[in-house]
Amino acid sequence: MRHTLSVMVENEPGVLSRVAGLFSGRGFNIESLNVAPTLEKGVSLMTVVAEGDDAIIEQIVKQLRKLVPIVRVVDMTELQSVDREMILIKVNAEDSKRAEILRITDIFRCKVVDVSMDELTIECTGDRGKISAILNLLSRFGIKEIARTGNVAMRRAMQVTE
Amino acid sequence: MRHTLSVMVENEPGVLSRVAGLFSGRGFNIESLNVAPTLEKGVSLMTVVAEGDDAIIEQIVKQLRKLVPIVRVVDMTELQSVDREMILIKVNAEDSKRAEILRITDIFRCKVVDVSMDELTIECTGDRGKISAILNLLSRFGIKEIARTGNVAMRRAMQVTE
Repeated sequence: MRHTLSVMVENEPGVLSRVAGLFSGRGFNIESLNVAPTLEKGVSLMTVVAEGDDAIIEQIVKQLRKLVPIVRVVDMTELQSVDREMILIKVNAEDSKRAEILRITDIFRCKVVDVSMDELTIECTGDRGKISAILNLLSRFGIKEIARTGNVAMRRAMQVTE
Repeated sequence: MRHTLSVMVENEPGVLSRVAGLFSGRGFNIESLNVAPTLEKGVSLMTVVAEGDDAIIEQIVKQLRKLVPIVRVVDMTELQSVDREMILIKVNAEDSKRAEILRITDIFRCKVVDVSMDELTIECTGDRGKISAILNLLSRFGIKEIARTGNVAMRRAMQVTE
């Protein structure tokens, strides 16, 4: 099962390497990970998406909690959360295809962030499914390059239990 | 100086830990990092933003290039590139403030992705400067939580040399 872990850490050298090492030490492949500053000085938030056995993830979460200097670990998988990532897609866009690509861009509420004679670079945000859908739709034009940030997750304000 | 490194790696367990270890081994703090799949099976793209001495970054780049299984390392700092990240911002939004927050959201072309009686969660994308600006503007309403992805960078199609 795919798990999304939200890990708040004190921003000391070596933390990221240790957290990543905990996963790889168990043969667990990290699908995506990102880490960036929070509003609190010296504290960063890390979001890890990894697929694997629930029992092992549970072990990893327990070990993360013991790891100094971890502030907080939350497995977002069971919570209602906003899950989104951003992707940049550089796609072939010769004149005759450009209108169609721009139409797809509009439908998905993406933004064109760079343009040249024969390429467009598009920025999109969304959950896993939406990102897959746009990649599928654009693939027939020829995608030259992508860069994706990996998922970030935030607990929804209302946890609806119905 | 702040450097943005774009590192393409084969997706083997332990790679992330080793790359992160290269930075921390030199006392270099990573400001943000993300890693996510590319379109090529088994290959991931990592973007690292780190601030520090140019000579040391150059050493790190050299060592990264020797690290198996690294496919490619590019220091984007000197190139013309599209640099963007995504942030989720959960902000206090009582009735009397809501219109003003939504106006700011519109101006910055952000999207509301979650709402409750007294909070809004906003998704924004942009470069470092834009993200700082929106955080500054929203701070007076009371920001409860943020989650940011860290920067991804893509070489611009046209490298204008004028």
